Amino acid sequence: MDSFCVSVWDSVWDYDTPRILIIKNKTVGVVNRFIQCIIIAYIIGWVLVWEKGYQEFDSPTASVTSKVKGIAFTNSSLLEEHLWDPADYVIPPQEESAFFVMTNVIVTRNQVQGLCPELPSRASRCKSDSDCTAGYHDSQSNGVLTGKCSKGVKTCEMYGWCPVENDAVIPNPAILEEAENFTVLIKNSITFPKFQFSKRNILSSANASYLKVCRFHQKNDPTCPIFILGDMVRDAGENFQELSVQGGVMGILIKWNCNLDRPASECFPVYKFRRLDKGTNEALSPGYNFRFAKYNINEKGKQTRTLYKAYGIRFIIDVFGKAGKFNIIPTLINVGSGLALLGMATIVCDIIALNILKKKHHYEELKFKSIKDGELALLEEGS
Amino acid sequence: MDSFCVSVWDSVWDYDTPRILIIKNKTVGVVNRFIQCIIIAYIIGWVLVWEKGYQEFDSPTASVTSKVKGIAFTNSSLLEEHLWDPADYVIPPQEESAFFVMTNVIVTRNQVQGLCPELPSRASRCKSDSDCTAGYHDSQSNGVLTGKCSKGVKTCEMYGWCPVENDAVIPNPAILEEAENFTVLIKNSITFPKFQFSKRNILSSANASYLKVCRFHQKNDPTCPIFILGDMVRDAGENFQELSVQGGVMGILIKWNCNLDRPASECFPVYKFRRLDKGTNEALSPGYNFRFAKYNINEKGKQTRTLYKAYGIRFIIDVFGKAGKFNIIPTLINVGSGLALLGMATIVCDIIALNILKKKHHYEELKFKSIKDGELALLEEGS
Amino acid sequence: MDSFCVSVWDSVWDYDTPRILIIKNKTVGVVNRFIQCIIIAYIIGWVLVWEKGYQEFDSPTASVTSKVKGIAFTNSSLLEEHLWDPADYVIPPQEESAFFVMTNVIVTRNQVQGLCPELPSRASRCKSDSDCTAGYHDSQSNGVLTGKCSKGVKTCEMYGWCPVENDAVIPNPAILEEAENFTVLIKNSITFPKFQFSKRNILSSANASYLKVCRFHQKNDPTCPIFILGDMVRDAGENFQELSVQGGVMGILIKWNCNLDRPASECFPVYKFRRLDKGTNEALSPGYNFRFAKYNINEKGKQTRTLYKAYGIRFIIDVFGKAGKFNIIPTLINVGSGLALLGMATIVCDIIALNILKKKHHYEELKFKSIKDGELALLEEGS
Repeated sequence: MDSFCVSVWDSVWDYDTPRILIIKNKTVGVVNRFIQCIIIAYIIGWVLVWEKGYQEFDSPTASVTSKVKGIAFTNSSLLEEHLWDPADYVIPPQEESAFFVMTNVIVTRNQVQGLCPELPSRASRCKSDSDCTAGYHDSQSNGVLTGKCSKGVKTCEMYGWCPVENDAVIPNPAILEEAENFTVLIKNSITFPKFQFSKRNILSSANASYLKVCRFHQKNDPTCPIFILGDMVRDAGENFQELSVQGGVMGILIKWNCNLDRPASECFPVYKFRRLDKGTNEALSPGYNFRFAKYNINEKGKQTRTLYKAYGIRFIIDVFGKAGKFNIIPTLINVGSGLALLGMATIVCDIIALNILKKKHHYEELKFKSIKDGELALLEEGS
Repeated sequence: MDSFCVSVWDSVWDYDTPRILIIKNKTVGVVNRFIQCIIIAYIIGWVLVWEKGYQEFDSPTASVTSKVKGIAFTNSSLLEEHLWDPADYVIPPQEESAFFVMTNVIVTRNQVQGLCPELPSRASRCKSDSDCTAGYHDSQSNGVLTGKCSKGVKTCEMYGWCPVENDAVIPNPAILEEAENFTVLIKNSITFPKFQFSKRNILSSANASYLKVCRFHQKNDPTCPIFILGDMVRDAGENFQELSVQGGVMGILIKWNCNLDRPASECFPVYKFRRLDKGTNEALSPGYNFRFAKYNINEKGKQTRTLYKAYGIRFIIDVFGKAGKFNIIPTLINVGSGLALLGMATIVCDIIALNILKKKHHYEELKFKSIKDGELALLEEGS
Repeated sequence: MDSFCVSVWDSVWDYDTPRILIIKNKTVGVVNRFIQCIIIAYIIGWVLVWEKGYQEFDSPTASVTSKVKGIAFTNSSLLEEHLWDPADYVIPPQEESAFFVMTNVIVTRNQVQGLCPELPSRASRCKSDSDCTAGYHDSQSNGVLTGKCSKGVKTCEMYGWCPVENDAVIPNPAILEEAENFTVLIKNSITFPKFQFSKRNILSSANASYLKVCRFHQKNDPTCPIFILGDMVRDAGENFQELSVQGGVMGILIKWNCNLDRPASECFPVYKFRRLDKGTNEALSPGYNFRFAKYNINEKGKQTRTLYKAYGIRFIIDVFGKAGKFNIIPTLINVGSGLALLGMATIVCDIIALNILKKKHHYEELKFKSIKDGELALLEEGS
């Protein structure tokens, strides 16, 4: 018993290493080194250098606020003379990581609840009261039919907000086409929680007077946080005047790719612009618009409203990126699993040596030692 | 020195391959092949076919806009006759990837800042002025107490928006129960940036007249982008009439799982609906509501407001999914790390062959060659 | 042919196992076991216990709604006496996973479109009409210059919303500094779709009376879903009174880390608070504010508006976390790839045994068997 324990204890400290056959053949040797070189190049070049496998990574948490500036004076036949400022055309006044600038609008003033003729459509055209079903309405209706046929316009009478909005013709050019020159200040703070690293897109090199005059330009001033709407749309390869008529959705992509092994000043945002509401079949249901109303009480104490069908550009700000910093754990894991790939070279070379080379049978004999259960007695002398 | 270099150079092109013992034993042979088959089946079936390990993947960036349509006519005892259209019941008029439809409402008209009695509560009930502390208010208060006790209602007088809203009774059935028939057009564009692939949920097979009449149905018309609110709620297993009284939060999940090795027309969205504000203990603080006000200036130049406590359904649209396309790098990595698993078979079979089989000692003798430091001299003849 | 098939069939059930050299040397044996122990400790300690490699994981989908409560009475020289309730100071009344509480405000009443002098600035100061270019406006302008110089104030006359807002002086202390005591109820439902597991942050242990009086406290009551604004700001290490003057952006982080192998009652949210709009260079363009307007029609039928420049705190609620549950597939994958790392021990020990130890040449002789193509004839007797 005692001697058994000693032998177990001894064998704990044994070191097992595979017995190796060295084949001194140029063909398979070259193939072997070639595959090993590819794998090592992959580990060093791709895993370590390109993918920075020696770093630990983190994604940013971001806060984005924006402030649009600029005024537009309109004096069209549709709207009286009016000066528009951000409180008028940014709707709603604040949003999370997004803002909407109204560029075109159809205004229907002084709507009150009451009776008026429907807009002409297949369902509402009538010759007599019998063509109009009292109480009828569908998802295209502006109100509930009363069952009467309006004499002049030959459409059914309805109860609803009157007069009805007529959006058959969209103003073109857009009413607020001056929006092209509006500017927006985007304030973006990011934090990489794992590294306790925070930064703003207003760089420390900026000062108050620079922030008043600077305008973002992809080449000349890529760090200025003030953007001209028209520039962003052009950068995305779109035409602002077209976009402003029907509206659309634009993406502002802010990428923070930071190598925190280098100085913090080398960590700064890169901006890209893209139109988001594209795809196949764009002619169908194009653009972006929504309706909102401003409510009032008139002198008779009745609620009135001014209905706006607002066309415009919705800018969605998307902050993404990653920060990397040296860490020993991912380094070891990546190198280790890379080294495990080196076994691939042996698999490929064994196939070559044992199946393709002329002396394959010799290699086979030397590499393998075969043992059949029936032959065991004859092999007592060991390897 | 010269010959040393030659020998190093020669050994660079050596090929090292492990020497193998072949055990011709059915038991362990079958186990070995069985484990290898499982691993190969796992690599091919799970890694390559199921998880599509031969593809590179990307997540979509999405743009979602929505437009609700439908009208509701109400003539309840609480509210005068009123026709509601989207500008009235969608609040705010636009949101990012979400929309809110008001289904129930408590309206308090013509509030002005002034003095009036508080709502009855433990803190506000009084018998005399001494029960009311001037200036007192807590988070449940509607205003600041003046220190007087209102005679008629026996609650403390306060300064605030008067008259006070009374939300003790929620209208049931909901005032806008017709919202069940409202429709919403959801426009969703996605881009897989890595593959420069964009698509809309309005498929190229659609045309303008189809888009006017189609309604989404999980089986009959799963690609129509127009949804009936009631259908979505039913699909999620909820009851619209109940939900419309107290309000709630619904999720619209749009899944884009695209295999870009196949034609683009096979890449289309799948819609699912789910109620989001569920969990244990639902009776407590149920539903979804918020207050907002419409402000006016009255004839005396004083600000008045109409306070709305809006109950309704908030729909949150969540776009997710992934696109895959063949790429050689992930293919190699997945096959490589799969092959590394084949080593598992040897580990298991060694345990069986060397510990369980009858002839384990013979195998051991043949597999292993032992060398003790003290015995080295005797072994000069090599392997 | 027949016998060939038999021999192939036989060899299918062969079991190949590497032939091993056991080196009974304490040095390399200890190093070998030491590395193996590190790798096994890494697999068990890090992969299985710490990273819970035996579990399948899922991320939550969340729904967050919030309701602010509290009133503030102001009677400053700038604003007449006014009682503010949530419908007044929460703008917009509802947002997705966020809410804004106005803490400070500059009000400009009764603006109408018309002519008035610009605010003094470098571009607008004038001595005579010749200093003012008719039609001129830039992104800092409040209106379009008419080309006249206003006599009294010596700035150019403009057309726009008059009178112009003067935001040179920010009220300090903040007008709504009482916002420190406001409370917010955050209702958060999460679902882990993979596990069909839903839960709310209103725990089942809560009841209606508890929900009226409880207030979140990091230590004393970490599960109460009602938060005092001032407490959240203090928890983040900020000063509420400072923040309320200029405004800012706060993050409310709700972390759901759930081990679903344990009872569901152990799955509850953890709250953290952080100021989000920080970074280097904070003095530049600090705080958070936006402008909005309330529109009215005056007795002459002309549109008037009250312009608000609202400073305040934007709270952004971020729900994250993960749930894990035992699953056999990730367990096998993690254990398997961990075992593959054991090969590393052999690589390191081979280097030691064959290059560093005194008897390296003996080990080399025994481990390797060399074969040169030219010598093959001499080796016909096999290994």
